[in-house]
Amino acid sequence: MELYNGERPSVFRLLGKYMRKGLYGILTQGPIPTHLAFILDGNRRFAKKHKLPEGGGHKAGFLALLNVLTYCYELGVKYATIYAFSIDNFRRKPHEVQYVMDLMLEKIEGMIMEESIINAYDICVRFVGNLKLLSEPVKTAADQSMRATANNSRFVLLIAVAYSSTDEIVHAVEESSKDKLNSNEVCNNGIEAEQEFKEANGTGNSVIPVQKTESYSGIKLVDLEKNTYINPYPDVLIRTSGETRLSNYLLWQTTNCILYSPYALWPEIGLRHVVWSVINFQRHYSYLEKHKEYLK
Amino acid sequence: MELYNGERPSVFRLLGKYMRKGLYGILTQGPIPTHLAFILDGNRRFAKKHKLPEGGGHKAGFLALLNVLTYCYELGVKYATIYAFSIDNFRRKPHEVQYVMDLMLEKIEGMIMEESIINAYDICVRFVGNLKLLSEPVKTAADQSMRATANNSRFVLLIAVAYSSTDEIVHAVEESSKDKLNSNEVCNNGIEAEQEFKEANGTGNSVIPVQKTESYSGIKLVDLEKNTYINPYPDVLIRTSGETRLSNYLLWQTTNCILYSPYALWPEIGLRHVVWSVINFQRHYSYLEKHKEYLK
Repeated sequence: MELYNGERPSVFRLLGKYMRKGLYGILTQGPIPTHLAFILDGNRRFAKKHKLPEGGGHKAGFLALLNVLTYCYELGVKYATIYAFSIDNFRRKPHEVQYVMDLMLEKIEGMIMEESIINAYDICVRFVGNLKLLSEPVKTAADQSMRATANNSRFVLLIAVAYSSTDEIVHAVEESSKDKLNSNEVCNNGIEAEQEFKEANGTGNSVIPVQKTESYSGIKLVDLEKNTYINPYPDVLIRTSGETRLSNYLLWQTTNCILYSPYALWPEIGLRHVVWSVINFQRHYSYLEKHKEYLK
Repeated sequence: MELYNGERPSVFRLLGKYMRKGLYGILTQGPIPTHLAFILDGNRRFAKKHKLPEGGGHKAGFLALLNVLTYCYELGVKYATIYAFSIDNFRRKPHEVQYVMDLMLEKIEGMIMEESIINAYDICVRFVGNLKLLSEPVKTAADQSMRATANNSRFVLLIAVAYSSTDEIVHAVEESSKDKLNSNEVCNNGIEAEQEFKEANGTGNSVIPVQKTESYSGIKLVDLEKNTYINPYPDVLIRTSGETRLSNYLLWQTTNCILYSPYALWPEIGLRHVVWSVINFQRHYSYLEKHKEYLK
């Protein structure tokens, strides 16, 4: 990562950059995903495999992350989301939680330095999740970095911390309830909506019913959609280490997302995986666009 | 499928059955998944590939489904869930919707016949989804088959029709609201719960916070979990045709589910895919069990 630590780029790095440019020239002939999401799996396994001291896997993982983000931004992927720390991770051994929190604090503080990748690529940073659960210093640093990058507009980096998808959905329910109570909205036309649907269907004019129900909560699909933390939805979700589980990450958002599980451990992720994600996206693009139209 | 149409099994079928028995003898030395879920993708592509007349793909797909269910039940997989018809499928061309509805009606009626797979394997059938959206004859047949098999207890076949995961979540919100209103439950101790968590965390005794929030809706994670249509959660979700998307199916339930996407089109699915799912499950079993304990 030539830009992160402010060092002068070596000849090899420059060569790599120009070779990437050539590759991007070909890839950008097709559509480029708007949003790539990542589950950074395999840091601890990498440390074990290479007999690294404690925390070595996470450090290697952080360098890999900077490289991957560089590739995304060079390619023009506007949104990147990473799963930094799940709510369930708070159950890990206390010293391990502390280590990750310290690392996060150090890296968040590093991010708002002048010469960091964040400013070099004009990236707006957003932390998403139940941020109240973070330790005070991490929360303060996260707030600072969000404020410091709020005016960056070219790319968006979403960092999911103290996050789980089911918690996000419960949060969306809560926010939707608040909206309903504040607007005093009453919704009780569910039966009519279903009848309308059946009549339309009966005449052969197949239409999808409006998502309305008899109203106890008054909460509709659009309300929940509006109140989830992460939007737009990712085009491709990459989970390293060959794992295909979602582990309570972006469940709501992966409705039509391509899931990709390369065997590489997270610190081993490279350009080839990002390129493969883009090619896979391009292969599905026309179908997915048609599907979006069909759902309108 | 020797049992479905009541024909006498041929020598080859019997031989196949005994060979499977041998294979199951090995597999059942390890843990067997409780629940397999399927997305039946590729029926239309199969018809195109083999130049079958309209509906030929769905017919071949139905035979494949019977085979796969037989393998599941022979292996002792207690729950199988299939994605028969999504809410979005109502947007297909009217004659195509009609064709699938007719096929569904025919097969549901077939299911409750004496000699069907359902009674042979003692299977309880449950239709899940927004059943009010089904045409009247299909809804009646679904109700009948659920009633007719309600006392079968060895296996459970869940058939998701007029289903989408986001609709299921909205439904769970609605049901939870109804429960809250009926029980007049008040929940407003969120701030205390967070403070408790932070104090515990600060002393190095890392614990997960109780999922409570300041209460507008009063709906918690456990309420939504209780009110989703599909439970228990699947251990492996198989989507054929090499597609890795979830297509709004079991989003809530796939938190820790292994996702498997073989390249075979649905009518080409066979024993090897079921066996591979079981082996994959066994490979992850000890980790997933540990994870369940950790989340308790």
